[in-house]
Amino acid sequence: MSQPKKLRVGIVGGTGYTGVELLRLLANHPHAEVVAITSRSEDGVAVADMFPSLRGLLDLRFSVPDVDVLSECDVVFFATPHNVAMRMMPELLAKNVRVVDLSADFRLRDAQQWSAWYHEEHACPEILAEAVYGLPEMNREAIRKARLVACAGCYPTAVQLGFLPALEEGWINDQTLIASCASGVSGAGRAAKVPMLMAEASDSFKAYGASGHRHLPELEQGLADIAGHDVKLTFVPHLIPMIRGIHATLYGTLSKNAPPLEEIQAHFEKRFANEPFVDVMPAGSHPETRFVKGANYCRIAVHQPQGRDTLVILAVIDNLTKGASGQAIQNMNIMFDLPENAGLIGAALLP
Amino acid sequence: MSQPKKLRVGIVGGTGYTGVELLRLLANHPHAEVVAITSRSEDGVAVADMFPSLRGLLDLRFSVPDVDVLSECDVVFFATPHNVAMRMMPELLAKNVRVVDLSADFRLRDAQQWSAWYHEEHACPEILAEAVYGLPEMNREAIRKARLVACAGCYPTAVQLGFLPALEEGWINDQTLIASCASGVSGAGRAAKVPMLMAEASDSFKAYGASGHRHLPELEQGLADIAGHDVKLTFVPHLIPMIRGIHATLYGTLSKNAPPLEEIQAHFEKRFANEPFVDVMPAGSHPETRFVKGANYCRIAVHQPQGRDTLVILAVIDNLTKGASGQAIQNMNIMFDLPENAGLIGAALLP
Amino acid sequence: MSQPKKLRVGIVGGTGYTGVELLRLLANHPHAEVVAITSRSEDGVAVADMFPSLRGLLDLRFSVPDVDVLSECDVVFFATPHNVAMRMMPELLAKNVRVVDLSADFRLRDAQQWSAWYHEEHACPEILAEAVYGLPEMNREAIRKARLVACAGCYPTAVQLGFLPALEEGWINDQTLIASCASGVSGAGRAAKVPMLMAEASDSFKAYGASGHRHLPELEQGLADIAGHDVKLTFVPHLIPMIRGIHATLYGTLSKNAPPLEEIQAHFEKRFANEPFVDVMPAGSHPETRFVKGANYCRIAVHQPQGRDTLVILAVIDNLTKGASGQAIQNMNIMFDLPENAGLIGAALLP
Amino acid sequence: MSQPKKLRVGIVGGTGYTGVELLRLLANHPHAEVVAITSRSEDGVAVADMFPSLRGLLDLRFSVPDVDVLSECDVVFFATPHNVAMRMMPELLAKNVRVVDLSADFRLRDAQQWSAWYHEEHACPEILAEAVYGLPEMNREAIRKARLVACAGCYPTAVQLGFLPALEEGWINDQTLIASCASGVSGAGRAAKVPMLMAEASDSFKAYGASGHRHLPELEQGLADIAGHDVKLTFVPHLIPMIRGIHATLYGTLSKNAPPLEEIQAHFEKRFANEPFVDVMPAGSHPETRFVKGANYCRIAVHQPQGRDTLVILAVIDNLTKGASGQAIQNMNIMFDLPENAGLIGAALLP
Repeated sequence: MSQPKKLRVGIVGGTGYTGVELLRLLANHPHAEVVAITSRSEDGVAVADMFPSLRGLLDLRFSVPDVDVLSECDVVFFATPHNVAMRMMPELLAKNVRVVDLSADFRLRDAQQWSAWYHEEHACPEILAEAVYGLPEMNREAIRKARLVACAGCYPTAVQLGFLPALEEGWINDQTLIASCASGVSGAGRAAKVPMLMAEASDSFKAYGASGHRHLPELEQGLADIAGHDVKLTFVPHLIPMIRGIHATLYGTLSKNAPPLEEIQAHFEKRFANEPFVDVMPAGSHPETRFVKGANYCRIAVHQPQGRDTLVILAVIDNLTKGASGQAIQNMNIMFDLPENAGLIGAALLP
Repeated sequence: MSQPKKLRVGIVGGTGYTGVELLRLLANHPHAEVVAITSRSEDGVAVADMFPSLRGLLDLRFSVPDVDVLSECDVVFFATPHNVAMRMMPELLAKNVRVVDLSADFRLRDAQQWSAWYHEEHACPEILAEAVYGLPEMNREAIRKARLVACAGCYPTAVQLGFLPALEEGWINDQTLIASCASGVSGAGRAAKVPMLMAEASDSFKAYGASGHRHLPELEQGLADIAGHDVKLTFVPHLIPMIRGIHATLYGTLSKNAPPLEEIQAHFEKRFANEPFVDVMPAGSHPETRFVKGANYCRIAVHQPQGRDTLVILAVIDNLTKGASGQAIQNMNIMFDLPENAGLIGAALLP
Repeated sequence: MSQPKKLRVGIVGGTGYTGVELLRLLANHPHAEVVAITSRSEDGVAVADMFPSLRGLLDLRFSVPDVDVLSECDVVFFATPHNVAMRMMPELLAKNVRVVDLSADFRLRDAQQWSAWYHEEHACPEILAEAVYGLPEMNREAIRKARLVACAGCYPTAVQLGFLPALEEGWINDQTLIASCASGVSGAGRAAKVPMLMAEASDSFKAYGASGHRHLPELEQGLADIAGHDVKLTFVPHLIPMIRGIHATLYGTLSKNAPPLEEIQAHFEKRFANEPFVDVMPAGSHPETRFVKGANYCRIAVHQPQGRDTLVILAVIDNLTKGASGQAIQNMNIMFDLPENAGLIGAALLP
Repeated sequence: MSQPKKLRVGIVGGTGYTGVELLRLLANHPHAEVVAITSRSEDGVAVADMFPSLRGLLDLRFSVPDVDVLSECDVVFFATPHNVAMRMMPELLAKNVRVVDLSADFRLRDAQQWSAWYHEEHACPEILAEAVYGLPEMNREAIRKARLVACAGCYPTAVQLGFLPALEEGWINDQTLIASCASGVSGAGRAAKVPMLMAEASDSFKAYGASGHRHLPELEQGLADIAGHDVKLTFVPHLIPMIRGIHATLYGTLSKNAPPLEEIQAHFEKRFANEPFVDVMPAGSHPETRFVKGANYCRIAVHQPQGRDTLVILAVIDNLTKGASGQAIQNMNIMFDLPENAGLIGAALLP
C-alpha cells in the first residue's frame, strides 16, 4: 500500500516552548513532518541538542529563516514572539504557502488597536482582514479555506470556550463579564527574566497585569463576535507555581431569561457534543489543569453558587497544547482536510 | 531587672499545621510560653519528635486533653478541627481561662446557620453571643475584653481586610461582591487524604467548593458587619500547588459616589495606617503570597482595570500566620495588653 | 485492508498510578486494547470518572477481579501492590493467560529472601523459577517466550541499565558499588499517607530507607546476573519534590583494567546502540528527569571526576513509564512479537 | 536601663538572595543594625521596593559602594559573587573594618588553586593567609580574633560538618570519600539564566558539574584540615526542584578500627553536644531539608546499611541560612563576643 505523501511543515522560531511543543506533537503526526525549523541564534545546532527530550525522535537542525526554504513547505507555523510573523507574512503568502501563526500579530482585526497595545505600527495592516481567527469551535469553516490562520491566544481560548454557550444564548449580562484566570509559568516563554526564575515564581501566587493585559482586546473582540455586539470584560490573570496549564474562572450575571442550571448544563453539553476537544464535565465538577496536561482538550464545568444570579464557569486547558501548539495543529488539520484529531489523540499526563 | 512573669499558654490539638505554627511563633514570644499541648493520639510523644523543626527549641510532650491542666493556663488555644472546642468550652470558661479558638466553632453568631453548614447541632449555642470575632482590624476593643475569641478564618481574613475600606465607604455595590480566592495546600490540614497527596495536588490548579463553601456564611456575616446591612458574595476558592499562602482577588462594582482611583488608594492607605499588620502597597502593585510567607502581614493593592466601573482588590496573607496562628497570637497580645506585635515581628521568608 | 485483531488486555488493580499510566499508554497502542480492568473498591465506577484525563478516550468500568473474565484476555497486567499477583497467579497461568506483573511478587528468585524483605510467606514459590525478570535490555529472548514476566522495579531499572556496560566488562569493583538515587513522589503510590501529603513532601528533600530498602535484593540479584557473581551495593534512595522521575547517581571504583573515559563512553554507546529505549548522551552530559517525563526512555551519561579512579554514571527514567508501565508494555510487545516500540513512541513532555 | 550600642553593619551587594537573607535575619538581631547597603545598579532604590517582604521592617536605600561609608561600619558583609570582595578588601582592612565575606574570594589558601578554578588572577593573594575560614564548628577561636572571615560555602558546610566526627577519629578511609549532594535553586543566585527559569528547573532533577565543581578544592582543603593530611573526595552536586535547602549524602568506607554504629552515633552526638547549631538526630533518622528551612541548623543522621562497611551520613542545612547568611551572622556574633545565637533563634518554617 503506498504511503500518502506527508504535509511538509516549516516552523519559524523553534527555540521557545510553543516550538518544542509543536515538535513533540508533530513527531507523532501521521500525516505531517517537519522539514525546516528556523532560529537565527541557533543556526546549525541540532534540535535534539537543545531539547534532549527529542533525542532519537527528530533529526533536524535549526537554520536561519529563509523565505525560499519556507516556501517549499505546505504550511509554515510561526512560534515566535509578536512582531516577527508580520514582517515575513506578505512575502510568504505571495509564494502560496499557507500559514498558521501562533503569535499575536494577526489576532486583532483593528490595526490601530494592535498598535495601541503593542506600541508600534503594524507591519502589514492590509493582511489583517484576510487572517482567520484560529479557534476551531467558532470558525471551523473559515479556517478550512484560510491562507493565514491567527491562532487564538491561550487565555482567550479558555475564556471564549467557557463563555460561548451562555453568551450565544444571551443568558448572561455581556457588559459585566469577569474572567479571573491563572496560568502556569510556561506562558511567559523561555526568555531569561528574573521574575520567572524558579526561586522567584515557585512557591508563590500573584496577579499580574491587573490594570490591563494584552489579551484583553483579543478577548473582547472574540466575545463580541459571539454575543453579536460589543461586550465588557474585566480580565485579571494570575501566575500559578507550575509549568503548564490555564484555569479560567468566569463570572457572569444571569439574565432574567436564563433557564435553570440543569438546562444550562444540558445546553453546554449539547453545544459542544460534536467538538472533538471540548469536554463539558458532569454537573458539580471542578476541572483540574492536570486533567489536560499535555493534551489538546478544554474541560468545562458550570456552577450557580447558592442558586443566586451569578453563573460561574470553570474551564481548563494546557496553555501550550490547546492554548497554542495543539490548537495550531488542529487548525492545520482542518486547513488540509485531515482528521481533526490527527496527531492530537494523546491523553493528559496524569499524575 | 526582674523578668516579668510569662503568660502560661495551653494548646489543644497541637499535631496539625496551625498547631506547629503556634509553636514556631510562641517559641520566640518574649512574654508567653507554652506549658501544655494536647493530643489524644500522640500522648507522651515529644513534640520535637513529631516536628523536628522544633528540636532544641521546645522541650514538651503531648498529653491527653485535661481541663484541670488547661485551667492552670492563662490562655488556651484551640488548634483543632471544628467540633472540638465547643465540647470543652463551657467547662473551660467556667474555670476563668481565656480562650483563643482557631476553629470554626464560634465564628457564626447564628447556631442554626452553623448547623446548616456543619451538619450537626451546635454544642453550646448559649456561648455564641459572648464569642468575639477575632479580626483585630475590625474588633480590637472587643477582643481586648473577651473571654473567648473566635479567630477569623483564613479566607475571611484576606477577603474582609481587602473589601473593608471600600465597603465601609459604600463605594462598591455590596449585593454583587465576588471573591475569587486561592489557597496553598496547608489550608486543607494534615489529615491523610488522596486529593492532598503531592502526586495529586502539585503541578495542577483547580477550583473547589464552587457551589458552596463553609467560609461563605462567615464571610457574609463579617462583610455585613462592615457594610451595616446584608450583603451578597460569590466566593470561589481554588487550590494552589504550594504549601502556604492565600491570594484573594476581589471584584466590586463601583458605586456612582465612588471617588477616582487615586482617592480610593489614598483612603486604603489611611484606613490601615495604624494597623501593624496591614500593608497597602503602592498604586499598581501586585502583592505576591511569598511577600508574606511565614509572616503575619496582609498586603493589599487596588486596581481599576481600564478605568471602568469594576474595582479589583488584591490581598495576600499566609494562611497559617495572619490567616490562623499569627492572628491568634495577635489576638492574645491584645487580650493581655501586650505589644500587639510581640512574637510576630519576623519578616517573610523570601526567597 | 482488514484490521489485524488487537490483543485483549486485562488490568488487575487499575486505580493506582501504574494503572492509569498503563491506560494512558494503551489508549494509543495500535495493537492492543484494554477489555477489563479490576478494582474491588471501585466496582462499577467508570474509569474516566476516577481519572478524568481519560474522558473521551476510554469507555470502561472497573469490575471485581474475576479469573474467568481475566482468562479471556491474551495478557493480564498486575498493577497492584505486592502480595496480590501471587495469590491469583497459579489459577491464571493454569488458564493459559500470559501475565506481566508490575509488582514485586516475582522479581526475586529466592522465596526466603522475598519473605525476609516482605515479612510474609510467598504464596507460590514454585512459580518463581518460571518468572522471567522483565528488563528487556538484559532478558529480551527469555521475555519473548515467557508466560510470566516480573517487570523490573523502578530504581532497579535505572541502576542496572546504568551499571550494565561497565559491570559486564569488569571495569568497576563490584564489591563497592554505590547507588545514590532519587525518585518523584508518584513512586510511593496513590495511598493516603501523611508523609506524602503535598504540605509534607513538597519543598523538601530527604533520604529514606537508608539502612535498608526492599529494592536492594532485587538490585543485587540483577547486578550479580550482570557481573557473573555476587556483588555488594550500597543503595540510598531519596524523595524529590516532584511527581515523576528517577535519577540514579552511580559510583564505581575503576579497576586497573579499565580503559580511558573516552573508551568507556564509546562502549556505553555501542552497548546500547540497538536498544530502542536506552540513550547514551554525549560525553559531559547531565541527563535531567524532565528529558524522559512521560516517555519510555532511559538516558545515561558517564563521568570520571578529576580523572581519578571513581566512575560516575548518571541515569534517568520516568518511574511510571520505563520504570513501570511503559516497560510493562515493552515486555508485552516482545512477548507477542509486536514492534517493541508500539504504543511507546511519544516524546517526553517538556517543558 | 540604657540600651547598649548596636553594631553598625554594612552590606556590599544586597540585591541577591544572600543579601536579602542577611536583611531578614538582621532585622531581628538584638545587637546589630544595618546602616548601609550597596548596589551599583539599584542606587537610590528603597530596599523594600525590591524586596517587599521587608516593607515596614527596613527603611534603607541602596547606595553605590563607597569605602568611606563602609569604613564607618563595625563590620561589613560581602554578599557578592566572587571577584568583588577581593577588589575592595585591602582598602577596607586598612581602615580597620572587620569583614565577613560570603563569597568564594578568600576561602582557598592557595592563590594558584584559586586561579585555576576561577580563571583569573587573585587580586590580593597577600591577604589569603590572614583570612580565617568561617566554619565556627572548626575554627571558633580563630574567628573570634579575625579581621577577615571567609564564610564556608553552602555545600562545604554540610559536607564538612557531616564528615567531621568520623574523619577526626580516622574511622573512614579519607582517600575514597564520596559526597552526593543536592541543592535548591536559590543556590544558583538571582541572575536571569534560562536553566534556572521555573519552566526549566522545576519538576525535574539533575546532576551538574559532575566532572568538576568549584566547591571541590574548598571541600578537600577543609576535609584535609580535619583529617590532618590530604584527602580525596568525589563530589557530585544535584539540583532539587525547590528554593531552599541542601542535602548531603556522604559515603565513607569504614576503617578496620571503626567502632560499632552505636558508638559512632554516640560519638557524633558528643562531638556536637555543645554546638548551638548542629543537631545529631536519633539513630535511624532521615533529616529533611524542611526541618531547617529558614533556620541556622545543620541536622545530621548516621547509617550503616546492612551493617556492611560503608558509613552513610546524611546532613541538611538551609543553603541561605547555615549555608550562607545565617552562618555569616554566627561568625559576626563570635567576632564581636555576642551570644552566638543572637538573631538566629528562629525555628524552621514548617510546613
